Amino acid sequence: MRLIVPLRGVIQGRGGLFVGSLIPCCLFYFLQLYLKRRRPPPSDPTDLPRTFSRTNLFSRGNSIGRVRVSSRAVPVAKPSDSPYYIGLERVKTDPYDRITNTDGIIQLGLAESTLCFDLLQRWMSENLMESMMQSDDGEFDISSIAMYKPFEGLLELRVAFADFMSRIMGGNVSFDPSNMVITAGGTPAIEVLAFCLADHGNAFLIPTPYYPGFDRDIKFRTGVELIPVHCRSSDNFTVTVSALEQALNQARKRGSKVSGILFSNPSNPVGNILSRETLCDILRFAQEKNIHVISDEIFAGSVYGDKEFVSMAEIAGSGEFDKTRVHIIYGLSKDLSIPGFRAGVIYSFHEDVVNAAKKLMRFSSVPVLVQRILISLLSDVRFIEGYMAAHRQRIRDKHIRFVEGLKQLGIPCAESGGGLYCWVDMSSLLTSYSEKGELELFEKLLTVAKINATPGTACYCIEPGWFRCCFTALADEDIPVIMERIRQLAESFRS
Amino acid sequence: MRLIVPLRGVIQGRGGLFVGSLIPCCLFYFLQLYLKRRRPPPSDPTDLPRTFSRTNLFSRGNSIGRVRVSSRAVPVAKPSDSPYYIGLERVKTDPYDRITNTDGIIQLGLAESTLCFDLLQRWMSENLMESMMQSDDGEFDISSIAMYKPFEGLLELRVAFADFMSRIMGGNVSFDPSNMVITAGGTPAIEVLAFCLADHGNAFLIPTPYYPGFDRDIKFRTGVELIPVHCRSSDNFTVTVSALEQALNQARKRGSKVSGILFSNPSNPVGNILSRETLCDILRFAQEKNIHVISDEIFAGSVYGDKEFVSMAEIAGSGEFDKTRVHIIYGLSKDLSIPGFRAGVIYSFHEDVVNAAKKLMRFSSVPVLVQRILISLLSDVRFIEGYMAAHRQRIRDKHIRFVEGLKQLGIPCAESGGGLYCWVDMSSLLTSYSEKGELELFEKLLTVAKINATPGTACYCIEPGWFRCCFTALADEDIPVIMERIRQLAESFRS
Repeated sequence: MRLIVPLRGVIQGRGGLFVGSLIPCCLFYFLQLYLKRRRPPPSDPTDLPRTFSRTNLFSRGNSIGRVRVSSRAVPVAKPSDSPYYIGLERVKTDPYDRITNTDGIIQLGLAESTLCFDLLQRWMSENLMESMMQSDDGEFDISSIAMYKPFEGLLELRVAFADFMSRIMGGNVSFDPSNMVITAGGTPAIEVLAFCLADHGNAFLIPTPYYPGFDRDIKFRTGVELIPVHCRSSDNFTVTVSALEQALNQARKRGSKVSGILFSNPSNPVGNILSRETLCDILRFAQEKNIHVISDEIFAGSVYGDKEFVSMAEIAGSGEFDKTRVHIIYGLSKDLSIPGFRAGVIYSFHEDVVNAAKKLMRFSSVPVLVQRILISLLSDVRFIEGYMAAHRQRIRDKHIRFVEGLKQLGIPCAESGGGLYCWVDMSSLLTSYSEKGELELFEKLLTVAKINATPGTACYCIEPGWFRCCFTALADEDIPVIMERIRQLAESFRS
Repeated sequence: MRLIVPLRGVIQGRGGLFVGSLIPCCLFYFLQLYLKRRRPPPSDPTDLPRTFSRTNLFSRGNSIGRVRVSSRAVPVAKPSDSPYYIGLERVKTDPYDRITNTDGIIQLGLAESTLCFDLLQRWMSENLMESMMQSDDGEFDISSIAMYKPFEGLLELRVAFADFMSRIMGGNVSFDPSNMVITAGGTPAIEVLAFCLADHGNAFLIPTPYYPGFDRDIKFRTGVELIPVHCRSSDNFTVTVSALEQALNQARKRGSKVSGILFSNPSNPVGNILSRETLCDILRFAQEKNIHVISDEIFAGSVYGDKEFVSMAEIAGSGEFDKTRVHIIYGLSKDLSIPGFRAGVIYSFHEDVVNAAKKLMRFSSVPVLVQRILISLLSDVRFIEGYMAAHRQRIRDKHIRFVEGLKQLGIPCAESGGGLYCWVDMSSLLTSYSEKGELELFEKLLTVAKINATPGTACYCIEPGWFRCCFTALADEDIPVIMERIRQLAESFRS
């Protein structure tokens, strides 16, 4: 009742009646506004299948109207409108094969590598069976692979992963297996980190252009927003502290709570490698703002240029910074070219994140059989050293060949030193220098040249005309075919 | 401004001043109340590590206060206070081994089976390598297992699963592979269904006692509530429509939106099998209320009694009901005893659920290598028939032995016909007939008798004294040891 006193004072004064009528109305208005803003957005009426609305209309008594899925599942169930996924789907309908379907669509949209399949094939042929055997007498023991094991991964595997990661990152950084959680690929790793570091409605800053899959990885279920931090070709698309600062301030003005910065290093799709200075700047910025840093280092071993790769784990461990805000994503889909094995890692310096991620691995754990194989594979130092050297050399060779082909067509690429792709400036082929022009070129590439390359729009790049082209699943003889198709397309524009 | 008019009319009438002061206060009060209810619960201050609060207190300028995880990750990171998980953790510290640690804790808390490991061992030894070979010449082909494949599972595997499920369910029901999504175990299957069928804050009705793992599977990330529908020993813990109706009405009165009914059949932990009539009643009830039905049938092939198992898919397909509301969970962790393989299934008659689940499998897909093995395993009809017959026979035998042992101690079990456990009435051993008494007995069993059995409290059973005892990972010679330990404990109570 104490609340009444001041208000009664106001009302009993001069203009009491007016104020007394205005206050409730204002309050009521703001209540309505608040309620309206908190209500989940109504699902698009076009989502409603015709049959559904009909059934509902005519059902009476015991309703047998078609039951609805949750409103959050509706956008997930719908086909994606991102050119990245549209391109991938289109390839499936007519995939190029250099013998059986020479007119098919050539896939440059998927970052996978077949460059060292000969080495993997040999290792697997020789070791697959043995790596699954656990007992001392070399007999296969079913209980070692069939039963429940800790969801976060066997200790032996975490030890092997730690050693492997340190090795491919040049040996300057060591990883503690107790900070590590094994995940079913890099994809659940990023989702689990988003869940652990940000609440529904919070946001991560993310430098653009960025890997288009992050939208699904993060937005499908965690409700975390991604706020683009626009980078430009003049800086070779490297993020700067001033751009981070500006994006953070704008986000805060809009009322967004920013929980962290997410980025790929080597960058995906550009392929550039962040310098030690840039990493320090980012971490210092994050520390000042008291937010998290998520470094996706899934291409760390796919570095082929002269520039040294530095893990954010190394910067975090330097003693200069509070490392508990640093979280690393890693996996074997790129560097070991085995995405079909679904093996990834969350590496975090924050105890709560490690503990929560371990528990959440009940949803994304790696089969024990696969863990056994990976333990053998990652622990085979002789193989790993040979493989990594070949992997890097072969990416470098293919990169030179691919970039040279484009160069002869007058098409330049961004400077890059890592990743299974290059970032191609096709702005000279645009009919209009705009997103629309870029999407028209994407469509032309897909339907006329029959090439699926990911347009910059899908990666939130603000400069039109850039495309990500993945080249590590191509044979050498595919490259002239691609260049000829692009040449003909370019020609058709001129005529 | 139109809003002002009616209120001004009220205020300008008799008692204007009073009403004019009362209305804003009431509105303000309700606004506060609303805001308070919508606010996420404050995290427990005990969560705050001492170091954290200190750092925050003393940090100045460039804050290097320890960064916080999301509020939703905090309860996940904490150790569980459910006796189910407490028991499982305790076993890890001192596990019984009939040769090396005869004083250790005997595990009756985990539903896994080693009964047919001899058969699995033989099959794997003979077929593991071959099942991974895909090319016609029998040579191992790395590209068939290493590359990206559809996250929802290979078509061949879904076909094999459909056939296998139909077979173990007596052949009366067929499954369409296009309604099926392969998941990394039953655990992600239930989480993905919860995400797709209910929004954050919505609820499922769930008959008690229920499998304690559902709390984590559903509550960790989806925000869906579980509303217990209490069942009683007098009905052998079988759910009735009147109990469902009552729970639904109560939930709606409290403002909960109920999106579906979730249950296990065969029931976990009781082990009873729902009759065709009960299934029809449940589906009819769901139809009347326009809610979903999720039937967890992960023990469908572990049925050993005389009672026929009927899948909800069979009822849904009968033509009498709207089947789009029916969703089945299945997996190989129980019936094939291979939880380490992480292989499960979502089977749904709702197109949107199937489409959304396929996309969400990016977080929980099964490695292609494991899929290849499962295709061979599930398609080997001769092996599967022999295995299933042995699996059932051996559970039956072990069940008889275990239940007989308890009976000789004067401890009865609920009637059951499926599952890898029995539901034991230890109320005669309680010092007080209450939850407290039950938890005391749980603790005594764990520390004195050194047996981990899951107390009914963990399963939300309202009658004290019931325990779930899993017996299918026991050797025959373990059973007398368990009975002797219980006998001694019971004795100690009497003396």
